[in-house]
Amino acid sequence: MITILRIGHRICRDKRITTHVALVARAFGADNILIDNEDKKIEETIRSTCNRFGGDFKIETGVNRKKILREWDGNIVHLTMYGDELGKSISKIDKKKDLLVIVGAEKVPPNIYEAANFNISVGNQPHSEVAALALFLDRYTDGKWQNKKFNGKIEILPSSSGKRVISKDK
Amino acid sequence: MITILRIGHRICRDKRITTHVALVARAFGADNILIDNEDKKIEETIRSTCNRFGGDFKIETGVNRKKILREWDGNIVHLTMYGDELGKSISKIDKKKDLLVIVGAEKVPPNIYEAANFNISVGNQPHSEVAALALFLDRYTDGKWQNKKFNGKIEILPSSSGKRVISKDK
Repeated sequence: MITILRIGHRICRDKRITTHVALVARAFGADNILIDNEDKKIEETIRSTCNRFGGDFKIETGVNRKKILREWDGNIVHLTMYGDELGKSISKIDKKKDLLVIVGAEKVPPNIYEAANFNISVGNQPHSEVAALALFLDRYTDGKWQNKKFNGKIEILPSSSGKRVISKDK
Repeated sequence: MITILRIGHRICRDKRITTHVALVARAFGADNILIDNEDKKIEETIRSTCNRFGGDFKIETGVNRKKILREWDGNIVHLTMYGDELGKSISKIDKKKDLLVIVGAEKVPPNIYEAANFNISVGNQPHSEVAALALFLDRYTDGKWQNKKFNGKIEILPSSSGKRVISKDK
């Protein structure tokens, strides 16, 4: 099971970035996302997406981050531009264990680096936690997110021009 | 040369998402980004990053998008959740030609689908243009963005714990 833990979420400032983090988590094969600060609006947005597009992705906000880290039974990866190389690190992670991926907003306290078994960078340039999570999950799942079936009420079919949408919600 | 064209940018609403798009463009091997609506603040933010972290990435806002599309000499890729499969599409793109990658905000007019040689989806689930651009550039460059040297005043070295930063700005 893959769980994402979003920390340092600020309701106003991070609304859209955290929404993108959650949607990426869902699309790239994670099972759920936990967000430290309570935000009912983001919960609604993500549940509405799941309701329409399928899958059993879960979201919870207002979680106790210290308790989660203390009690986590499995690996903990912290994505940071200061971390170790993605390619080098990923082969060291035992995939049989549950995985918690920590995605920080701008400032991350030092104890997060210590709580993680793996501090991993997707390149050492500043870019985006949204992109870092997507690349990490792509590599971690060996690209298998591409084959995942969501069985949603709405299904989008690949198309080289225009839009092909199947709607089962009649 | 790889150019990103960000369209439909709304200064207030898209500020942070477009900034992430620009930073991803820079980190994942694009040469420049053009943004349709003028936004001096984003120009400043990105130039400040380039000044500190290096490379010769360029940004321009307030560009004439119709003119760019009409006069573009090379391939045009439009990233959209309605597009054709990434893996299938990418091998068809002639990499010897210059590339323009269109990254839309929420609503994209139909003529963009027509202007593009390739409408490409990074999965057909809703997620994020930030993630879509990162994955597309990763595949398009065969992961070579990871070897790019930026020679910035600030250089971050990979580290499994804590931060290792070289600052040449003395």
